[in-house]
Amino acid sequence: MEAHPYVPRDLHLPGYAPCFLSMSNILSVFASSSLLIVTLVWIFSGRFKKTKVDRVLMCWWAFTGLTHIILEGYFVFSPEFFKDKTGFYLAEVWKEYSKGDSRYAGRDAGVVTVEGITAVLEGPASLLAVYAIATGKSYSYILQFAISLGQLYGTAVYYITAILEGDNFSTNSFYYYAYYIGANASWIVIPLIIAIRCWRKICAAFRVQGGQTKKPKVR
Amino acid sequence: MEAHPYVPRDLHLPGYAPCFLSMSNILSVFASSSLLIVTLVWIFSGRFKKTKVDRVLMCWWAFTGLTHIILEGYFVFSPEFFKDKTGFYLAEVWKEYSKGDSRYAGRDAGVVTVEGITAVLEGPASLLAVYAIATGKSYSYILQFAISLGQLYGTAVYYITAILEGDNFSTNSFYYYAYYIGANASWIVIPLIIAIRCWRKICAAFRVQGGQTKKPKVR
Repeated sequence: MEAHPYVPRDLHLPGYAPCFLSMSNILSVFASSSLLIVTLVWIFSGRFKKTKVDRVLMCWWAFTGLTHIILEGYFVFSPEFFKDKTGFYLAEVWKEYSKGDSRYAGRDAGVVTVEGITAVLEGPASLLAVYAIATGKSYSYILQFAISLGQLYGTAVYYITAILEGDNFSTNSFYYYAYYIGANASWIVIPLIIAIRCWRKICAAFRVQGGQTKKPKVR
Repeated sequence: MEAHPYVPRDLHLPGYAPCFLSMSNILSVFASSSLLIVTLVWIFSGRFKKTKVDRVLMCWWAFTGLTHIILEGYFVFSPEFFKDKTGFYLAEVWKEYSKGDSRYAGRDAGVVTVEGITAVLEGPASLLAVYAIATGKSYSYILQFAISLGQLYGTAVYYITAILEGDNFSTNSFYYYAYYIGANASWIVIPLIIAIRCWRKICAAFRVQGGQTKKPKVR
């Protein structure tokens, strides 16, 4: 039986099969697919006479939605990905990422829970956000706010549980900073910016409404 | 050393001190303090010429905010509550509640994380919601929506992690249904109702804004 590279060393992973793809293979497939999606959504969004900000947001929601559904969705429903011997891309992604956080290979309940909520609820909701922005739905901001807040809550649970459990799930400090910190940083910064923007837009809408009717009835 | 009553039986709790207060003592103190707060907020809210719905919401936010800060805040920052020999009320609450979910006594990382976010962020935010409703702030709905969504996310993490870990943390089925299910049910039903109401109010505000200016600029 092959020894796995993950920390803690006594993590029990019977049937572990080592990575077939290199880190650069895995990252370049992810980067180029993401770039393809973003480019397609950018071109497509040009048809809707939207502001540049709205078009960037449509790209983000398409990218993050597909990441949640495909990448994270595969993880949630594939508890034995570390045994995969076929070189299947999605299994390779999680074998590689587990070097930065072995709780993925070890099937930590907190990680599986957060990824489950993200893949099943936030993924489809992100794709709905692309549609909502494109068609100018009245629920566009509150939907984007809800998903962003969910992403922030998930990331908070992800890091706080790790700290409480000793924050020692990385093979080495390169993987710690590149995968565990680096790969997740976008899901703190971007949802935070979007949540603040939506909060402000929603407050502005209520001020408009309040100014319009002297006695604000809906409030 | 006293044997603890919790499940799993091999849960290691050195220095455990048994409950001093009875279940009816603990519940009656909680019920009467809650009733006192709700009554005071109800009377106080009468000064603000608010609708009955808004006054009920102010009572809810005061109740849930103080529960988050005092009860759950104590738990988060008192890892050794199960050793308390003084009969201190808040320690007794968590010794008793642990009969329904021993992850509290066992300091499960997922539970501590959710309770931490709830006590530190959602607690103060709930009290801010009382003020926001009373003074008709433009951020009133989005704030209530954000807290409700946080409560729902927290409850989802709470139950899903338990299920993934075998759902066997209750002393018996009475405590399972009374504490683990019953005591948490309000924090599913009420946040869900409030979140849906806020969602609708916010959509309505954008429809008003959209109808007012033919070319919706803010959107």
